[in-house]
Amino acid sequence: MKVTVGISARHVHVTREDLEILFGKDYELTKCRNINQPGQFASNEFVTVRTEKDEIAHIRILGPVRQYTQVELSKTDCIKLGLNAPIRESGDVIGSSKVTIIGPKGMIEREAGIIATRHIHVPIEDAKKLGFEGLETVSVKIPGKKGGIMYHVSVRIAENSYYEMHIDTDDANAFQIKSGEELEIFKDIQE
Amino acid sequence: MKVTVGISARHVHVTREDLEILFGKDYELTKCRNINQPGQFASNEFVTVRTEKDEIAHIRILGPVRQYTQVELSKTDCIKLGLNAPIRESGDVIGSSKVTIIGPKGMIEREAGIIATRHIHVPIEDAKKLGFEGLETVSVKIPGKKGGIMYHVSVRIAENSYYEMHIDTDDANAFQIKSGEELEIFKDIQE
Repeated sequence: MKVTVGISARHVHVTREDLEILFGKDYELTKCRNINQPGQFASNEFVTVRTEKDEIAHIRILGPVRQYTQVELSKTDCIKLGLNAPIRESGDVIGSSKVTIIGPKGMIEREAGIIATRHIHVPIEDAKKLGFEGLETVSVKIPGKKGGIMYHVSVRIAENSYYEMHIDTDDANAFQIKSGEELEIFKDIQE
Repeated sequence: MKVTVGISARHVHVTREDLEILFGKDYELTKCRNINQPGQFASNEFVTVRTEKDEIAHIRILGPVRQYTQVELSKTDCIKLGLNAPIRESGDVIGSSKVTIIGPKGMIEREAGIIATRHIHVPIEDAKKLGFEGLETVSVKIPGKKGGIMYHVSVRIAENSYYEMHIDTDDANAFQIKSGEELEIFKDIQE
């Protein structure tokens, strides 16, 4: 089993309600480019994320709007911002790190800051064929001088998805992984 | 086999000659605090490292002066600076990334930028007892939600050293490892 890697830079998802606070009434996200997951796109809209300690400007919103507002950060970002963000699956924002999100027309304060679990998107129609049926996590092997293994990579089997592994910039930089690299998957360990 | 981890933030080593260019004739590094490796210390002296693309200020010099000038960076730093620094053992700077190092009294341009190999310092007198005799590399296991294995961790058996594993901030942040954490060592894989 092999999977192609995509590296997720820090980014934001927003609800329609929050988008309108940040960018104005009836505002719609505009598409910069499609990403591999069907229907999703990198927008032309950016926000600043601020905490008591510091801020990071120019964080891109990924569209379309979602049922939750979420800021996906790396641990490196969290250290800069003074956050102890939990490692979570996307959408699991309750009780996550409180941040202020600032747009051109307004700002919001939300429990929204997470470090996303390493994960693999698996189209439900291919889950069996690809060998993911019944698996919640897998391990992934990385070659090279700074190679190794990532344990506990979440398997997200869903309709309308594109087969791809997503890691954050910390994992990419630590292991020196490039977007588009093919990595080997095997059975996860139990701890 | 277990080992305690120390996280190395970006830092600089300098030759006496380069120290004098950067800080002035007959300048001596001053000690801020000892580090675990015997005789070595975090100095009170800082430099800026500049490239054509960007710069990082306030990088600490570790003393005492050495036979080589070296800038140990993370991949995250290298991306900011636009460098494709090699993964190297400390001291192996020939042909490494060219950087400008700026001190209060002068600046130098050197092939000095490396990403240090993950490594374990092993006192030569304990190498056999600790199980490192004859080993050039080991693998190290990291627990937790972002756990995994680091392959190819260099074993540096030397006199006058303190038993400790050193990783950079990218590895620490990707695996969410804290300084002082104890990790499990086992036989390295061959690739």
